[in-house]
Amino acid sequence: MIEWFDDVRVGMRFKAGQKVVTREDIKRFAAEFDPQPYHLDDAAAEQSMFKGLAASGWHTAAMSMRLAVEARPFGPHPLLGLGVDELRWLAPVRPGDVIRLEGEVTEVTPSKTRPQGTVKVKWTAYNQDGTAVYTFTPIGIVPRRPNDA
Amino acid sequence: MIEWFDDVRVGMRFKAGQKVVTREDIKRFAAEFDPQPYHLDDAAAEQSMFKGLAASGWHTAAMSMRLAVEARPFGPHPLLGLGVDELRWLAPVRPGDVIRLEGEVTEVTPSKTRPQGTVKVKWTAYNQDGTAVYTFTPIGIVPRRPNDA
Repeated sequence: MIEWFDDVRVGMRFKAGQKVVTREDIKRFAAEFDPQPYHLDDAAAEQSMFKGLAASGWHTAAMSMRLAVEARPFGPHPLLGLGVDELRWLAPVRPGDVIRLEGEVTEVTPSKTRPQGTVKVKWTAYNQDGTAVYTFTPIGIVPRRPNDA
Repeated sequence: MIEWFDDVRVGMRFKAGQKVVTREDIKRFAAEFDPQPYHLDDAAAEQSMFKGLAASGWHTAAMSMRLAVEARPFGPHPLLGLGVDELRWLAPVRPGDVIRLEGEVTEVTPSKTRPQGTVKVKWTAYNQDGTAVYTFTPIGIVPRRPNDA
């Protein structure tokens, strides 16, 4: 079990839970943060390149963060990020989709000056058909195991 | 004025509007998408490395998207992104902060196969003190001017 930075290894994998995406959620998020027709209006979305209502990419990002937080990949430590690399939206997220999230540690780097390290986890969200819809690689900070000596 | 991909040049700059960040907004977003103590609970946040309540980074990202959408950098065309490069959270966003957004075109690449191009805009969000709190570089798709010939 991962308790500290020292326990994290490249290649470790995490399985997070899943989330049902509703039409109401899609429109509510879009109205507040991404008010564009293909996220807000069914008829306008049909005429767009999405060919139907699609969640804002930032909504997918936010739902995926929730799944990552609940997965507690670093045990007792929170998910605290400096930023994100390689954020890509791969396929539209539709009303009724069920999104699940999986992660894999791709890089671990101990800090030279502080009792912590950075951990990159490449997370990928899939829909109920197994299609990858979103991927992001946050740069997280995880504390080192305290030295009892 | 920018109407099509063909009008976009590296170095063009955009000024977006601003957004007041409330304590209620911070907690509401966090409760739904990033339920960690330093985004949800004032007392717990005081004890954290944030030393006070701070917005979820994904909340800052979503608010910044709203400001970018309202700025209409590509005139009549929506903001449609394949993904984001160099997403970095630079400083905490606090209750009462006023966030404003500025952007600069860093790359334009015409598609070889489709009547469109990709445009990278490096957006930076600043707080009321002029401190940069967040930056992201979405990879947008903008259609080319139709050929009337």
